[in-house]
Amino acid sequence: MRALEFYQKEFISYLNQQASIKEPRNLYEPVDYILNLGGKRLRPVLTLIASELFGTDYQEALPAAMAVEVFHNFSLVHDDIMDDAPLRRGKPTVHEKWDVNTGILSGDVMLINSYEYLEGYEPEVLKELFLVFNTTSVEVCEGQQYDVDFETRTNVTIEEYLKMIEYKTSVLIGAALKMGAIIAGASTRNKDLIYEFGRNLGIAFQLQDDYLDAFGNPETFGKQVGGDIIENKKTFLYLKALELSTTEDRDRLLELFSGQTHEAIQKIADVKSIFRKTGADTAIKKAIQEFTQEAFNSLSKIEAPEDGKALLRQMGNNLMERSS
Amino acid sequence: MRALEFYQKEFISYLNQQASIKEPRNLYEPVDYILNLGGKRLRPVLTLIASELFGTDYQEALPAAMAVEVFHNFSLVHDDIMDDAPLRRGKPTVHEKWDVNTGILSGDVMLINSYEYLEGYEPEVLKELFLVFNTTSVEVCEGQQYDVDFETRTNVTIEEYLKMIEYKTSVLIGAALKMGAIIAGASTRNKDLIYEFGRNLGIAFQLQDDYLDAFGNPETFGKQVGGDIIENKKTFLYLKALELSTTEDRDRLLELFSGQTHEAIQKIADVKSIFRKTGADTAIKKAIQEFTQEAFNSLSKIEAPEDGKALLRQMGNNLMERSS
Repeated sequence: MRALEFYQKEFISYLNQQASIKEPRNLYEPVDYILNLGGKRLRPVLTLIASELFGTDYQEALPAAMAVEVFHNFSLVHDDIMDDAPLRRGKPTVHEKWDVNTGILSGDVMLINSYEYLEGYEPEVLKELFLVFNTTSVEVCEGQQYDVDFETRTNVTIEEYLKMIEYKTSVLIGAALKMGAIIAGASTRNKDLIYEFGRNLGIAFQLQDDYLDAFGNPETFGKQVGGDIIENKKTFLYLKALELSTTEDRDRLLELFSGQTHEAIQKIADVKSIFRKTGADTAIKKAIQEFTQEAFNSLSKIEAPEDGKALLRQMGNNLMERSS
Repeated sequence: MRALEFYQKEFISYLNQQASIKEPRNLYEPVDYILNLGGKRLRPVLTLIASELFGTDYQEALPAAMAVEVFHNFSLVHDDIMDDAPLRRGKPTVHEKWDVNTGILSGDVMLINSYEYLEGYEPEVLKELFLVFNTTSVEVCEGQQYDVDFETRTNVTIEEYLKMIEYKTSVLIGAALKMGAIIAGASTRNKDLIYEFGRNLGIAFQLQDDYLDAFGNPETFGKQVGGDIIENKKTFLYLKALELSTTEDRDRLLELFSGQTHEAIQKIADVKSIFRKTGADTAIKKAIQEFTQEAFNSLSKIEAPEDGKALLRQMGNNLMERSS
């Protein structure tokens, strides 16, 4: 196994080789734009690492890694339209730079392109990749729908919230790893274990994001601290605080989340105070710990060389040790 | 071979068996709605007939037929958003009945669902279906992009227009037939011939639609006669009229198509008069004749029982003999 940075570099080099803006340009320019906005390329790198973990050269996994990355970017383009998001990685979103129709159609062709990247695999391997990819893609759409639904629902449970973040974020991380394992011809048990590693780590990562959104260090978090609170997002912290609160705190929290009228800095301070008082902050840390542990348990059961597993463990630790 | 109506009935019965609205309902209700708006089910029926033509029971082809129909409906949902269309088959479009975001996400999941319908085929067959389906799906998106681009371009050529309608409409008809042939294990030559039959018939059909839009009988055409003229659509008739016109007629036609200010009935009459005077009406009839003949030439070369080919010929004649 080589270092993480090696796989990142190799993937980016492969991605750059794909870049040629075909006709019709108005369809493919936005595709090129979004694919080149940068990012850590976490998902495709996991596909490469999983293939090497199970003894197959990462180059075999490059097209599948690209399928995962193009699919991920398709979902970003369409989600950004639905969320009316102006920026993505600090740059204008596709529908802002062009228009909504361009965002829809360029997103569509990216979804199809992601399937096209699987075309080169042998029929048996292709079929297995295809099944994982289909299931995961449907779940990502379902996760986005749950996220949309939750905005207007007042009775979201923690269980439902966890399912939403699992579908919207985690399953693609699990699938990215599993696709690498499929290409390497790993055993069913190893394929399932590495999927579970990714799925649980993905949930832990998203919960960590919820935690840092409220309690993170503004210097290092990268997003606006308190953003979820300003937007009245029903995160794990909010739902847990409602569950654990006294009637008085519950009413106060519901009131704080009832509109856009509260002054932001005071609202963030008040909500965080309730998160602390109810123990929601401790509860989310415990949940993060549990999902991370679950992920590492699956990783340790995988039958593969220790150095590869160490690389995945290191990646997991890096992800979870973002400064709080 | 059985009659056309038999395959239609069997496909609709299969489609109805699939209908179960899963959770999240807000994602799947629109899918159920659009799939049950009716229509002739031309494309999936062609898949069934092609499979029987080459000696395989149509039931084997039902999932692939469903893939084609679900894909077609995905493209309708997203195109209707882009065209801001209020009605589809006389009923509210998905984005009108729900909203644009619902139309985007339900369309996305339909595109993935269409791939899922291919999951049951054997790896070798799956791979072949997958390649045709990918290529065709990308072309349909490209066709839609060309259509959008043409609205604001003033130098569209007839060649470009033909490519646009080929991609937007005809390739899926060719692919529907070819997928049936793949399932039946037809020879490469037969698969290519039946694809060409569908592709050319599709172009002829779309040109016929252009012709009827101007010169059709309002009693039987089904759409508003003159609709393309009112919308300044750059159809074959318009582009051919520009090509064949005197400077005076050309300027007059450009002027008539330059805005929304002309009174509709007079505009339609004036434009049709130019279409006739320039011989664009004769030219389109000739083109329809040529593409239809090309389609039937391919059909006649297919090595398959005469009764099956007769059914496809009958379908082709029915399509092309809509009253003018």
